Amino acid sequence: MNLSPVEIIFKKRNGEKLSKAELKFMFEGYVAGKIPDYQLSALLMAIFFQNMAVEEISDLTEIYINSGETIEFPAEMHTVDKHSTGGVGDKISIVLAPIVSACGAYIPMISGRGLGHTGGTLDKLESIPGFKTDFSRQDFVKMVKKNKFAIISQSEKLVPVDKKIYALRDVTSTVESLPLITASIMSKKIAEGAHNLVIDLKIGKGAFIKDMQQAKKLGKLLAVTGNHFGQKVSIVYTNMNSPLGKYVGNALEIKECVEFLKGIRANDIYEITKMLAVEMLLLSKITDKQKTAETMIDRVIDNGDALECFRKFITAQGGDASICDDTTRLPASKYEIPIISPKTGWIKSIDSQKIGYALVGLGAGRKQLDSKLNYAAGAYLPFKIGDKLEKGQELGKVYCQNTGSGEEAARKINNAYLLSGTSVKREKLILDITR
Amino acid sequence: MNLSPVEIIFKKRNGEKLSKAELKFMFEGYVAGKIPDYQLSALLMAIFFQNMAVEEISDLTEIYINSGETIEFPAEMHTVDKHSTGGVGDKISIVLAPIVSACGAYIPMISGRGLGHTGGTLDKLESIPGFKTDFSRQDFVKMVKKNKFAIISQSEKLVPVDKKIYALRDVTSTVESLPLITASIMSKKIAEGAHNLVIDLKIGKGAFIKDMQQAKKLGKLLAVTGNHFGQKVSIVYTNMNSPLGKYVGNALEIKECVEFLKGIRANDIYEITKMLAVEMLLLSKITDKQKTAETMIDRVIDNGDALECFRKFITAQGGDASICDDTTRLPASKYEIPIISPKTGWIKSIDSQKIGYALVGLGAGRKQLDSKLNYAAGAYLPFKIGDKLEKGQELGKVYCQNTGSGEEAARKINNAYLLSGTSVKREKLILDITR
Repeated sequence: MNLSPVEIIFKKRNGEKLSKAELKFMFEGYVAGKIPDYQLSALLMAIFFQNMAVEEISDLTEIYINSGETIEFPAEMHTVDKHSTGGVGDKISIVLAPIVSACGAYIPMISGRGLGHTGGTLDKLESIPGFKTDFSRQDFVKMVKKNKFAIISQSEKLVPVDKKIYALRDVTSTVESLPLITASIMSKKIAEGAHNLVIDLKIGKGAFIKDMQQAKKLGKLLAVTGNHFGQKVSIVYTNMNSPLGKYVGNALEIKECVEFLKGIRANDIYEITKMLAVEMLLLSKITDKQKTAETMIDRVIDNGDALECFRKFITAQGGDASICDDTTRLPASKYEIPIISPKTGWIKSIDSQKIGYALVGLGAGRKQLDSKLNYAAGAYLPFKIGDKLEKGQELGKVYCQNTGSGEEAARKINNAYLLSGTSVKREKLILDITR
Repeated sequence: MNLSPVEIIFKKRNGEKLSKAELKFMFEGYVAGKIPDYQLSALLMAIFFQNMAVEEISDLTEIYINSGETIEFPAEMHTVDKHSTGGVGDKISIVLAPIVSACGAYIPMISGRGLGHTGGTLDKLESIPGFKTDFSRQDFVKMVKKNKFAIISQSEKLVPVDKKIYALRDVTSTVESLPLITASIMSKKIAEGAHNLVIDLKIGKGAFIKDMQQAKKLGKLLAVTGNHFGQKVSIVYTNMNSPLGKYVGNALEIKECVEFLKGIRANDIYEITKMLAVEMLLLSKITDKQKTAETMIDRVIDNGDALECFRKFITAQGGDASICDDTTRLPASKYEIPIISPKTGWIKSIDSQKIGYALVGLGAGRKQLDSKLNYAAGAYLPFKIGDKLEKGQELGKVYCQNTGSGEEAARKINNAYLLSGTSVKREKLILDITR
């Protein structure tokens, strides 16, 4: 067959379906240096506008998976993972994995670092002194088999195509394409060996998906693609109009997770974690009853099993598990700057993205891929949409190493809160679920 | 101002208007090597889908023009040029320029070479022994002032941005974008110093514009953009469902042009040439009456003035003007292969593109930019849509240097004719005109 890059771009530009051979030719060719970047970027933009059929997405996902190593677990392990599309203050994985594994499920979790306004699970974990996320495939499999879960970083050898394509999408404004997002997420979640997957699909101002219609489209693509590769997928659609939990910032969130595993159930974290944990327990066949799953979850929190799993996990990955007994061993910041509400009113909206970027300014997140993090920096933000604030009341706190930049962040965070003169309804956290 | 390529692509992708500064940043930056090709190609594809407002097109045209040298003629010369969007057998410029200049108008014509299935005016002229098209800006201005017209090739210094951008569009399937086509055509026609412009906008199977709606859109963009730079523009919409004239091929078309200038008025060439010539005479203020213009045109054909202008023009550009007395001095092919109609019927459609590509196979046109041409190769195709053919009748002839490839071309050309069992109406040539 005689394939021509210009004709393939032309076909997609005109809304036609591309064959697996054509997709291979373009994407593998790009990684091999045979297709120039200007042709792949034109194709990516054409895909942004013309989309892809389900079959094309599966083909592309397969091409991504086959570009590198894959990890396999015995079928009878019924491994289950969770993926979140990302949000400010999203520390769910760090409490979810110990809880679900304490209930008996195996969780092979390959996670990411933060970029832009949202944080990354790996960054949060790395604020624990000594904690490592860079393990070989063999060590990863061993840790999952022994401790029931491990959270590591993506090796260069896993889905290398995605890394190269993502870098090109990032500089050509082609990130927000549902088919390309689907191939990127699912290839990693299939290559890591998860037999089952629960996706926390976040919707709202702080997420890259802004409305339910888009969310449902993406959810369907993710599920259908997973199923194509024999993976069972549940999608939990959650509200991301307020930051999750009460703390944002790497070490601050680890502290919050330890407290949660000790039984301090912050409302929003508890509700979402429980929902996701139930789905994971059902998918991994630990139980087939929702009620039983819920009881198990509360039990492993209350009897300390989940915290014990967390300790073992930290130790296995080289970290100092004594932070579970004494969270002051985590990096701490020099200053606390109060954020004062300038007026009285009910919180109507919270711009999580603005909060995320304000904290990036303190080093809590990354501006560039190689930015150095300040693990201690962050904020305490206990109020949610619908809560009432009085003029002069402390809306929250900024944790920083330098009062100047801390005060600037406090100002920006203050501006992220929109108050209403009349009362505002609290928002639902779990919006929908599809199995 | 802090401009970011990703944000500019993002804006256009989302359908927003780009400012002149943003367009400059991207297009000039690309030519200067500051914007990588993968970002410009993503922007070009976004423009393909989201289009450009009239103001953006004028801005882009200005950026194109300012990228190189420009040519100027005194305002009182009322220079006028003609541009054709290209078609198979389109030799109109070669008879039009001598006729209109014989009537007194000044025509500074910078023309192109053929690529793909359509021929180029320069290639046709270069089949005249000794004929040159590569002249300096100064010599071009001198020739136009002295002989009233000259037809030369685009120098590297005129609109250099267009050349680079066109090359990128060509390999990224972004050629067929009306705003980009407009900037490309109009920048050259303004930079060459034409005060007035008539555009032969071809519509049909043999043209890149397939329907009247698209044609009207493009026509409007071309006119508005010309007007923005003080250029008066008339658009003549013509039918391109059959090849123009009776011959296709470089030297064959020159022979046909000489015969035309001697008074042999082939129907379609005559009708279109007369229409375009009238527009050019009106725009260049030679006369303000259509009837007078028509009379002048017929007179300069009948009294030999137009042929005389053609001779002077050939001599000025280094060519052998004696081909006007003896067309056998033009390159001639060894063989003539008859094309025999396989059945009886009325011609319902002619696939000019197929004919063009069949002749490219004989060297009459270019496959690649650096393809060598065979000036003698071509075809004689006297029949048009609506004409009746008998089974076994000669539908036309192929002129070639090699009987094998000639027979293959004859077969392909035969396949380009679709016959109907019932009579077919002849088609209108001039479809519309906007001034």
